[in-house]
Amino acid sequence: MYASRISRLTGSVAREILSHANKQDILSFAGGLPATEAFEGLEMPDEKGSSFQYGASEGERPLRELFAERFQAKGIECDYEQVLITSGAQQGVDLVSKLFIEPGVRVGIEKPTYLAAIQSFALFGADFDTFALEADGPNLDEFEKVLQRGEVQFIYLCPSFQNPSGICYSLEKRKAIAALLDRYDVTLVEDDPYGELNYTQACTAPICSFLKKAKWIHFNTVSKILAPGLRLGCLVCSPEFFPYLLKLKQAADLHSNRFSQAVVLQWLSNVELMSQRTQQLQSLYYEKQQLMAQALNGYFKDIAEWNTPEGGLFFWLRLRGNLDARELLGRTLEKGVAFMPGGPFFPSEEEGAQFIRLNFSNPPSERIEVGLKVLADVIKSELPVHQ
Amino acid sequence: MYASRISRLTGSVAREILSHANKQDILSFAGGLPATEAFEGLEMPDEKGSSFQYGASEGERPLRELFAERFQAKGIECDYEQVLITSGAQQGVDLVSKLFIEPGVRVGIEKPTYLAAIQSFALFGADFDTFALEADGPNLDEFEKVLQRGEVQFIYLCPSFQNPSGICYSLEKRKAIAALLDRYDVTLVEDDPYGELNYTQACTAPICSFLKKAKWIHFNTVSKILAPGLRLGCLVCSPEFFPYLLKLKQAADLHSNRFSQAVVLQWLSNVELMSQRTQQLQSLYYEKQQLMAQALNGYFKDIAEWNTPEGGLFFWLRLRGNLDARELLGRTLEKGVAFMPGGPFFPSEEEGAQFIRLNFSNPPSERIEVGLKVLADVIKSELPVHQ
Repeated sequence: MYASRISRLTGSVAREILSHANKQDILSFAGGLPATEAFEGLEMPDEKGSSFQYGASEGERPLRELFAERFQAKGIECDYEQVLITSGAQQGVDLVSKLFIEPGVRVGIEKPTYLAAIQSFALFGADFDTFALEADGPNLDEFEKVLQRGEVQFIYLCPSFQNPSGICYSLEKRKAIAALLDRYDVTLVEDDPYGELNYTQACTAPICSFLKKAKWIHFNTVSKILAPGLRLGCLVCSPEFFPYLLKLKQAADLHSNRFSQAVVLQWLSNVELMSQRTQQLQSLYYEKQQLMAQALNGYFKDIAEWNTPEGGLFFWLRLRGNLDARELLGRTLEKGVAFMPGGPFFPSEEEGAQFIRLNFSNPPSERIEVGLKVLADVIKSELPVHQ
Repeated sequence: MYASRISRLTGSVAREILSHANKQDILSFAGGLPATEAFEGLEMPDEKGSSFQYGASEGERPLRELFAERFQAKGIECDYEQVLITSGAQQGVDLVSKLFIEPGVRVGIEKPTYLAAIQSFALFGADFDTFALEADGPNLDEFEKVLQRGEVQFIYLCPSFQNPSGICYSLEKRKAIAALLDRYDVTLVEDDPYGELNYTQACTAPICSFLKKAKWIHFNTVSKILAPGLRLGCLVCSPEFFPYLLKLKQAADLHSNRFSQAVVLQWLSNVELMSQRTQQLQSLYYEKQQLMAQALNGYFKDIAEWNTPEGGLFFWLRLRGNLDARELLGRTLEKGVAFMPGGPFFPSEEEGAQFIRLNFSNPPSERIEVGLKVLADVIKSELPVHQ
């Protein structure tokens, strides 16, 4: 009755947890939401009322030019004509799925990776080849083996403060990966929603800026630096992909919201305001990250291992013992605390059973420590006595 | 290299013409844009600033409730939980394509029908069974034959002031179609962007409101009654479709713009303002429709046939002689006038070669007559001398 892809349709566990969490007074480390404080004093720029009519599918030209400048500043050689305004970066994922994926197509992904990318790629029928993430980026042997097999249509990477792992690739690995993609001539789909949330001056140079031969698509969004409610993202890509992505965008929703485009144009045009805002966000989130780091050191040392992220919104923990994070979630919700179980960040959920993702941007600062203590206590009570 | 669907990807001829038209001072009868005058005095309601954060994929509950009330007032039995806020009605088409269509699936459509629906259904691999449109709706014999063959996954209809034909189904045909859909138990996908642009009190009762057994999805949008730049539409559907459409929406763009949702909520909540606005639009567009009707009677009597639409935005003309509308367009553009050739409104373009669609909402009133005279002169100059 339905298309066969519907048998591969999965919902977002995060959203299900969140909708549950919203119903009660639950402290949620589960989502990836910006801090509520981040919107204080954020004003909607004046609207000129010229945005009522239908607009261009590619987006407003001044906004495309502004994004092109921002990409150029990051080292990406591009022209505004390669920039497509999207309804959030998530739409970029949908368009790329439509462009490349049908049943039987293979996609190379980090293990773990962004769950909604897995969700969309799988919906369109993709199978996955994976490579492990180390503290400074993918294991290069595993990465090259995936390319060597010559079966993947593209590689999807989130090199800067990845969701869920928080990992930021080193400059060396960025360059090595670009060289490998060039050598095997495999397309790169690079997702960069967190690059600006950089608390330690880590290298966030886009990998596509190092490519010489391989084709590429690079996603960006204002969800993390301005406001996700605007649903405004964009992509920049190799010129030959653009006409296809544009037509797919047209068929998806004609064009993106013009009021958001006008509002984002005004914000981004104000370089000083944006640099101020980015610094404020970095301070705010770094402080919260530090709070979480301290609490983890206090309560989780014996029960989990993790790396401290240099940016982004998440800690990613591997639990010791043989615990199933999803089962654990039921227990912690009873105690009023939510987190994101690791399963959905892997192509097969079992692989992620021992992992949990903790968001530090959205929970109120004063509740982070007590919330993590509750979490740790539940975990300890579930562990075998000997451990 | 690309998914095989990309070989079926077509762009919108209307948008190509429009982008051409924007570059020069061309009078365009081609698009389906609201009148520029329709936005005069239209103000953006105050924004409460609570829309910055991520929102629910299904949309804001108060807005869903308001749309549910509006649907109930039109006779559709539904609850707000069946309402999904979409990024324009076009996104509804994309979600329905994903839900039902893969290569080999057949879809029943009016001949002609909305080109972007053909575009999206075909992109996902649909083949089409068609039935002719008469002045009061589909030819019922042809319609029943399509159902009888038992091959279509769903029927897509635009019963009120259809794009491109302008046809509004009679009450009798609406009921007859509902009865047939019930008898053969075939799902209805009903598109209703123009129902409020009703200049003659024509019956616009949704066909889904007459269904007793068959399942259904019904699209609506604020593009025609408020502003298309907001990209805000919604769908209401049989309860069993909702969870799938919701997950597909999530994977497409997480959720629709929250500022648009807040703004539309404020507008639609003001029943008096909206009724006033709808009446103003009806007067404005009826006046323009009358101007075009007069000019057509003056210049097109010998060269085309058409019905005068009772609502919506379009006249749909069949040219006499053996002219190809697409070739004609090249000539009229040289004279500074654009129209929409009929081909893209048919599954195979050749079938529509003799048709043209003329939009009367967007061209300035004072240019309608002179523009149509130019068009008629070009057509006459192309006709064989004997005719």
